Amino acid sequence: MLSKASADSIQRQIEGMAAFNATPEYGTTRILFTKQELENRAYVKEEMRRLGLTVTEDAIGNIYATHKGTEPELAPVWTGSHIDTVPNAGNFDGMAGVVCGLEAMRLFNECGVSHKRDISVVVYTSEEPTRFGLSCLGSRAMSGDMLLEETKKIFDQSGRTLYDKLVELGYPVDEKYTDILKRPGDVYAAVELHIEQNNRLEKMNLPIGIVKKICAPSNYVVEVTGVQSHAGGTDMTDRRDAFAAVCEMELALEKLARECPSEYNTATIGHLEVLPNAMNVIPGKVTFTIDIRDCNWNTKQTLIEAFQSDFRRIAANRGVSISIHEDNNDAPLTCNEKIISIIEESCKNRQLGYTKLISGPYHDTLFVGRFAPAAMIFVPSKNGISHSPDEWTDYGQLAQGADVLAETLLKLANSEKAL
Amino acid sequence: MLSKASADSIQRQIEGMAAFNATPEYGTTRILFTKQELENRAYVKEEMRRLGLTVTEDAIGNIYATHKGTEPELAPVWTGSHIDTVPNAGNFDGMAGVVCGLEAMRLFNECGVSHKRDISVVVYTSEEPTRFGLSCLGSRAMSGDMLLEETKKIFDQSGRTLYDKLVELGYPVDEKYTDILKRPGDVYAAVELHIEQNNRLEKMNLPIGIVKKICAPSNYVVEVTGVQSHAGGTDMTDRRDAFAAVCEMELALEKLARECPSEYNTATIGHLEVLPNAMNVIPGKVTFTIDIRDCNWNTKQTLIEAFQSDFRRIAANRGVSISIHEDNNDAPLTCNEKIISIIEESCKNRQLGYTKLISGPYHDTLFVGRFAPAAMIFVPSKNGISHSPDEWTDYGQLAQGADVLAETLLKLANSEKAL
Repeated sequence: MLSKASADSIQRQIEGMAAFNATPEYGTTRILFTKQELENRAYVKEEMRRLGLTVTEDAIGNIYATHKGTEPELAPVWTGSHIDTVPNAGNFDGMAGVVCGLEAMRLFNECGVSHKRDISVVVYTSEEPTRFGLSCLGSRAMSGDMLLEETKKIFDQSGRTLYDKLVELGYPVDEKYTDILKRPGDVYAAVELHIEQNNRLEKMNLPIGIVKKICAPSNYVVEVTGVQSHAGGTDMTDRRDAFAAVCEMELALEKLARECPSEYNTATIGHLEVLPNAMNVIPGKVTFTIDIRDCNWNTKQTLIEAFQSDFRRIAANRGVSISIHEDNNDAPLTCNEKIISIIEESCKNRQLGYTKLISGPYHDTLFVGRFAPAAMIFVPSKNGISHSPDEWTDYGQLAQGADVLAETLLKLANSEKAL
Repeated sequence: MLSKASADSIQRQIEGMAAFNATPEYGTTRILFTKQELENRAYVKEEMRRLGLTVTEDAIGNIYATHKGTEPELAPVWTGSHIDTVPNAGNFDGMAGVVCGLEAMRLFNECGVSHKRDISVVVYTSEEPTRFGLSCLGSRAMSGDMLLEETKKIFDQSGRTLYDKLVELGYPVDEKYTDILKRPGDVYAAVELHIEQNNRLEKMNLPIGIVKKICAPSNYVVEVTGVQSHAGGTDMTDRRDAFAAVCEMELALEKLARECPSEYNTATIGHLEVLPNAMNVIPGKVTFTIDIRDCNWNTKQTLIEAFQSDFRRIAANRGVSISIHEDNNDAPLTCNEKIISIIEESCKNRQLGYTKLISGPYHDTLFVGRFAPAAMIFVPSKNGISHSPDEWTDYGQLAQGADVLAETLLKLANSEKAL
């Protein structure tokens, strides 16, 4: 039997990473390949080495820290998550999974347990879409969803491509990009621990959630063009106010999402740019993003058709033009039943209550699940808040999650049957 | 009889000023006390001196260029407008009035006419509110609406006060601020030429509008605070989305403005900041401005009460908090009937069609009218567009406006009866 995970050790690691922060005055901001993110990469690799793990990094910056098994020729077991954040975020989204993965490795060392398969803690590159407008860059590349050519077509705000940034940082992107790709069989099983980012566990007073389905995102960039003009000089009946049109669109989208018959879905306008954005000028152009999640592919496609039709009708009624660009429209994931059973068993062994639930947020597991049997362990989020400075999970709850994770990884690493 | 104004001369001046532009790639941007605005000040003073005018500047940067009368002890006649712009604007809003004023002076020189009263072309400081969030800084100070202490309480985006900026530029603000103030009797009459910034003249195919009333602005800054959280992890029924609340508010404001029984009114949300403004985060806070115009004080106050009540109801229904800050709530102006009659006469003499109308946009005349009999001459705006790179008035139409302006100024400068 493994000893119990240490809340203190987990707190030390979480706080260690929290120091790498571009906005210490308001939450945590650690965006891909910024100074803070690069420093956090160095820090986490140092911590991995201190645990005696073998550390490697691939051509897109995914970090692999391996606890060697006795039969390393078998396909490995993976855990892990990400260390980048959205702007003004908390310290748990992503980091919880990396830190609890490392805590499991520490327990293996402490208890001197051996296992057949290699177990790797993976830090996936840029789960958040903040820098390049596309999420899960590292796991997406592993799954074959983003080929080398595509890294030359996504840009950050300064107009630089992901490809250029990788080359600048010295990643062997031309030589080694194809090595990133994983095929079915390459990984035996993958289990990611993550904060719930919702308040269902808290409401049910349960320490563990086992994810049965992961909603997949569909992202759109919408540009609405009206007529920029003087706020006082243009009659109310004559104006083609791009912002007023967008407001009608947001309320239509919200209504559609609320009325959607899916088991779980969301729709959000999170990013908005108004041009020229001056008090006394009628907005001539508004560009905004749409983020749609659904655990069901069909209901999602129905909603996507409906919002596009509503938006075009609203634009026509208001005499503004509209363009809708689809950034991605990903398929949801159903988690592996056998891994789910092993997680359930681990919860029971540890006498920890659990429930099975749907993840509204997606994670690297959405893409890892395309080439490996995969599942996720959730720990509670205080008040369900995430992507916010108020994001919080008690360190004791993280330790309970790490206990379940450690036991699950060990069982998987000693298992030989097909999943 | 004066000779006719020259469209070429006017074009040369408009294009001369257009060169001072911070955004040559998209419209004209010339914000108070930026490099471009300061250079334009130097340029316009040089042009004034070339016309033989006496140039002075007061402690807030209002420029006065005077064509001497034969009885300079009499109160002077004023014309003029402004040379600053909103971001990404056109080349006519403000500049038309300055350039046509100078063209009138050129005609007086060319025809060798003399007049009793001094006639001054005034360039009012910062009619646009872009830099300090408050409009008509120069004419406001003249009217006593902004005392010295208040220049220490308005800030630009860098956190600098108007006072500090004036001191830095060498304006004798501590010594001479009270000299800016004008009292009834100090100015005999003020006539501002401006582009219409609406399409009524164009629709009626008339070259001249005579303004009978000027709508006054009421400006608000509204802050809506919801709960910032993960776009995928927060159920549609649980979210407190600050942006969705703002959308409902915008549509409520639009409805109120459309249904308002005023002779002329508008309401606009032109500036908006979303926090954290990321694709996959529910907006936690939105700050936006409201710009309301009305030519009737009472209907405006009714609308202001109604929108505040609607906004608070919407905020309460959505569980978000709201704060509404009033920046200003100015009174509309009724123009001087006798000056209006003189402008009408000048139109008839020049055989130019005209109509009397209400100005939705306000102008420095709104404040000048508080201490002097005042009226305005409008020239057509192509498609009614203003505060936009598409803003346009034909140079021939500006010349027609300059003809009416010159004749009006001359009549006023030779008039001795009370207005």
